[in-house]
Amino acid sequence: MTSDNYIKDHFPLLATIDSPADLRRLPEEQLPQVCQELRQMMIHELSANPGHFASSMGAVEIVVALHYVLNTPDDRIVWDVGHQAYAHKILTGRRDRFAENRKMGGLSGFPNPMESDYDTFVAGHASNSISAALGMAMAAELQGTDRKVAAVIGDASISGGLAFEGLNNAANNKNNLLIILNDNDMSIDRPVGALGRYMTEMTTSKGYNNLRDKAYRRLRSRGMIGDMGKGIVLRFNNAMKSMLTGQQNIFEGLNIRYFGPFDGHDVLRLVKLLREVKDMTGPKLLHLHTVKGKGYAPAESDPTTWHAPGKFDEKTGERAKNRAEYEPLKYQDVFGRTLVELADANPSIVGITAAMPSGTSMSVMQQAHPQRTFDVGISEAHAVTFAGGLAKEGLHPFVAIYSSFLQRAYDSIIHDLSIAKLPVTLCIDRAGLVGEDGVTHHGAFDLSYLRCIPGMTIAAPINEHDLRDLMYTSQLPGHGPFAIRYPRGRGVLVDWHNEMHELPVGRGRLLSAGDAPVAVLSIGHIGNLVAKAVEQVAQSTGARVPHYDMIYLKPIDGNLLAQAADAAHTLITVEDGTRIGGLGTAVAEWLEDNHRTACRLVRLGIGDEFIDQGTVAQQQQQCGFDLPSIVNAIINALNEQ
Amino acid sequence: MTSDNYIKDHFPLLATIDSPADLRRLPEEQLPQVCQELRQMMIHELSANPGHFASSMGAVEIVVALHYVLNTPDDRIVWDVGHQAYAHKILTGRRDRFAENRKMGGLSGFPNPMESDYDTFVAGHASNSISAALGMAMAAELQGTDRKVAAVIGDASISGGLAFEGLNNAANNKNNLLIILNDNDMSIDRPVGALGRYMTEMTTSKGYNNLRDKAYRRLRSRGMIGDMGKGIVLRFNNAMKSMLTGQQNIFEGLNIRYFGPFDGHDVLRLVKLLREVKDMTGPKLLHLHTVKGKGYAPAESDPTTWHAPGKFDEKTGERAKNRAEYEPLKYQDVFGRTLVELADANPSIVGITAAMPSGTSMSVMQQAHPQRTFDVGISEAHAVTFAGGLAKEGLHPFVAIYSSFLQRAYDSIIHDLSIAKLPVTLCIDRAGLVGEDGVTHHGAFDLSYLRCIPGMTIAAPINEHDLRDLMYTSQLPGHGPFAIRYPRGRGVLVDWHNEMHELPVGRGRLLSAGDAPVAVLSIGHIGNLVAKAVEQVAQSTGARVPHYDMIYLKPIDGNLLAQAADAAHTLITVEDGTRIGGLGTAVAEWLEDNHRTACRLVRLGIGDEFIDQGTVAQQQQQCGFDLPSIVNAIINALNEQ
Repeated sequence: MTSDNYIKDHFPLLATIDSPADLRRLPEEQLPQVCQELRQMMIHELSANPGHFASSMGAVEIVVALHYVLNTPDDRIVWDVGHQAYAHKILTGRRDRFAENRKMGGLSGFPNPMESDYDTFVAGHASNSISAALGMAMAAELQGTDRKVAAVIGDASISGGLAFEGLNNAANNKNNLLIILNDNDMSIDRPVGALGRYMTEMTTSKGYNNLRDKAYRRLRSRGMIGDMGKGIVLRFNNAMKSMLTGQQNIFEGLNIRYFGPFDGHDVLRLVKLLREVKDMTGPKLLHLHTVKGKGYAPAESDPTTWHAPGKFDEKTGERAKNRAEYEPLKYQDVFGRTLVELADANPSIVGITAAMPSGTSMSVMQQAHPQRTFDVGISEAHAVTFAGGLAKEGLHPFVAIYSSFLQRAYDSIIHDLSIAKLPVTLCIDRAGLVGEDGVTHHGAFDLSYLRCIPGMTIAAPINEHDLRDLMYTSQLPGHGPFAIRYPRGRGVLVDWHNEMHELPVGRGRLLSAGDAPVAVLSIGHIGNLVAKAVEQVAQSTGARVPHYDMIYLKPIDGNLLAQAADAAHTLITVEDGTRIGGLGTAVAEWLEDNHRTACRLVRLGIGDEFIDQGTVAQQQQQCGFDLPSIVNAIINALNEQ
Repeated sequence: MTSDNYIKDHFPLLATIDSPADLRRLPEEQLPQVCQELRQMMIHELSANPGHFASSMGAVEIVVALHYVLNTPDDRIVWDVGHQAYAHKILTGRRDRFAENRKMGGLSGFPNPMESDYDTFVAGHASNSISAALGMAMAAELQGTDRKVAAVIGDASISGGLAFEGLNNAANNKNNLLIILNDNDMSIDRPVGALGRYMTEMTTSKGYNNLRDKAYRRLRSRGMIGDMGKGIVLRFNNAMKSMLTGQQNIFEGLNIRYFGPFDGHDVLRLVKLLREVKDMTGPKLLHLHTVKGKGYAPAESDPTTWHAPGKFDEKTGERAKNRAEYEPLKYQDVFGRTLVELADANPSIVGITAAMPSGTSMSVMQQAHPQRTFDVGISEAHAVTFAGGLAKEGLHPFVAIYSSFLQRAYDSIIHDLSIAKLPVTLCIDRAGLVGEDGVTHHGAFDLSYLRCIPGMTIAAPINEHDLRDLMYTSQLPGHGPFAIRYPRGRGVLVDWHNEMHELPVGRGRLLSAGDAPVAVLSIGHIGNLVAKAVEQVAQSTGARVPHYDMIYLKPIDGNLLAQAADAAHTLITVEDGTRIGGLGTAVAEWLEDNHRTACRLVRLGIGDEFIDQGTVAQQQQQCGFDLPSIVNAIINALNEQ
């Protein structure tokens, strides 16, 4: 924890701000210094305690201006993908606890309504802010308060279907929603820098009005504008504005008043702008340009790496290396390289990711086969349905999406892949507990929500070889949708590159034999922990407990279950997923369906609760399937008769 | 089945068309008669064998023109919400089987790739066509074929987030996708009729070009257009076009070439247009105006009623009344009226539906409390997240969505409602088997996909009183997300209007007592069938089998389960939902967790397969939980020891 004295010495203004009310008491001219101190504090804190860096650095002025102008927490700010909101956390009473960011018992890395009244809505998955804020704005209307509601959404998040649905509904009812588009996309090549800003200034200038009037009269004289009056004039203005700024303006098309683009780092200007627009009636959008990583040169020049850079040297910007030479690769790396290997051999293979090329390592495929790789942006449902279209024509897509984000594509998986049995490999990344990203990011539900889908194949590798073999198997002819789930982080093998072969669908394996009357069944990477537990039990009790690696959750290996149940009075299942509906449940169903009444079942996995941030080990302990818990469960079962 | 002779006599041209190849052999001037015959045949067939009427009547010319110009099935047509595609079915080899539309073993009411090569993609849920067609178009690029791909999407479907994600990605890669916007929305008040059509003609006319050139020179002379060359001129054209047509054109903004609007009922013109655009490179959108129910006056004047009108008199348009006076109301009617009753008493209640006000009976609330009712269009995820925003401010939303469509909102339910425990009632309509709408429309998965969500309350009423009581209970303080599922169709009580009272969460009931060693547990409306089965068993065997109505799936009533398990050697669960993950599974988990090894379990429900169209009774039989199947299961269990 950063000491009080350190804060007083280095961030004298921040030290006086215990809540936004304190901020609002400062004279405007001090706001740039507040921004400066916020940046310095984030650099200082995040260099030692890793977190999301570039986004939060880019949003400092937006945070300060919003809390300065709005009367928070009575007025509402809804952050979209809340990792832009660290400055917001620091200003809203969490300055002294910021060193506990993303730690168990500390602060959530994302806005969290259970943590603070200033965090109005859960903000771990992109694109939900407009819909949520619209709900709050409509509530203000219905309740007759003049509470202001602002949604802050990035240019990537706004491309999600949910954001569009929110925009599309924003003007359907009377409300005063303010949407702030935090636009830090440097990839779009359009002349907003010069012309755009000029045109924005112009909307209230004489020149624009003159032009508008003349053009209007001309159209009228040609009979193109009849007696439709004000309505068409308004639309005409909008079209003119969007024409002049060199872009179609879809916001005005959706009846949302548009202002911008403005420099999102000019905090005094932002304050002025917000004062102007906040009381305007009707939904409106303020378009701000910001720079990811703003104020820290290494991050500005490489914002992708600095999205979440890990520990780094505050002064030099050098990032800490935390991988020893002999450490195994990440599953993600193995996935990426294996996909290229498969794609080299099978020309029908294509890769799809939804805005996570680096996170999933689809970037490796992107580099090797750019024509056969698609990054569709934040649009998971489209990613899956698009894959369905490709598969219908004989291609074999590998779709890599984080487990918790794949929830967005649930209907696409059922309706667009599974009914027609289309051969698509779903590579479910970040499956299971994810650690520091916390409650919104766990891949807790995939085994459960996929298992009920007819014809779905569901597998999880215990190591890199199985990942490769499952990927290989999934692209062989004859399969429908094929899900492979694996966790965030490193595998267990230094020599990951095996020669791939088929893992027959629906067949598990006896990983280690034993004659004890208790058997453990596991699926996926967590099996490595189970193997250690089995070893520990053998060492401490002498009991040799058989350990089965199911590999496939669906179809499940009934022969293997029968073999296990025949020799045991208790089966223990271990899975890195919810206890409701996954492996343990499948075994319960099997035992009941097969009247194996002699055999007891103990199911270990994520309990029926949402799990907050912490390390994966802490979270496993909390859920009761860390190493000691598994050992205990085995010993307890051995002690029963 | 309509006899061959009837077809030859009444539809002489159609009688010669066994496939689109036959259609393409006809001279153009015969196409209007083909359209005429298609309409007459649909009126004739649908008057006797109910189905979706108005949409298909409106799309006749689009179907004929597409199959005439494209080389189907080699070229691909992707229908969005396929109930517009009856004419497509008739022209693609299914004319003589059309009388079996929506019947078991007959034709699916929606395009179905398992039924015909001409049905390229599953099309029961709205908004998926663009993503799927984009996949096919990209596949054509990658495979180096010049196969054409056309998606046909309605103006309601295109408002869904998935459609937007597809549009947003359409121009990201090289492809020649053709999107046809079938726009039959009569509710939008814009001057497309006169000005729009005029302006469309104008885009290639001298007048437009003159105007454009002059305006361009004017902007240039003012320094507003610099040296940016062709790019900005193109955008300028687009903006001008959209300005002139009185609307922002979001398609051009997304780099999709836009053509229209045109009259979608002028089949010869459509043929000409399609010939012009089909070979154009790059994604493009053809905007067509059509009239729902076109060609049948009663349907044209009331397309909502005629969306799926049931049987009717072909000549007079009089719709068959199929409700006897003494019949119970539909659950939907009870839901609508009860919601108003609750809303009258509780001012915090609001209602939300996603484009299904009549289907869900949210229309009753809409009429009684228009300010407190929101129809958000086809955007289920937004509906749920928007509800979260309202709930955060102390309102209590009731969100009514069909079970299978709610799959679209899965992540919103988890991320935007459940983590923050927001009090929202999810009214899950069309839960369970739905009959004629078939494979895409069953509410088979909701019990399973909701049960794994922490803090979710899940209930299902056995009759109208319980529906009302559950609705009442859900809006009492102290609950988080609260799901109530009920089937399509009629309840069981003539006197539905009870005085509402709380049904304690997590408590079920013993519906009928008995001393037999077999007990039946059910949840929801299917319990009525179970009650009959229990009665039949009593009559035929004398055994009095206790029947428990669980009411709540989550939290499940452990005391009741213990009571049932104590007195029985076999428990039978019956649910109108998938056998994987629902009630039967919850009981299996409970039995295993509580080491109730003496008690066997038989789980009845929807099997692990997709169920095609048919009557609900046929589908229940197929799944093994119709009346005889339940009776058999009980008797078999009684016979075991």
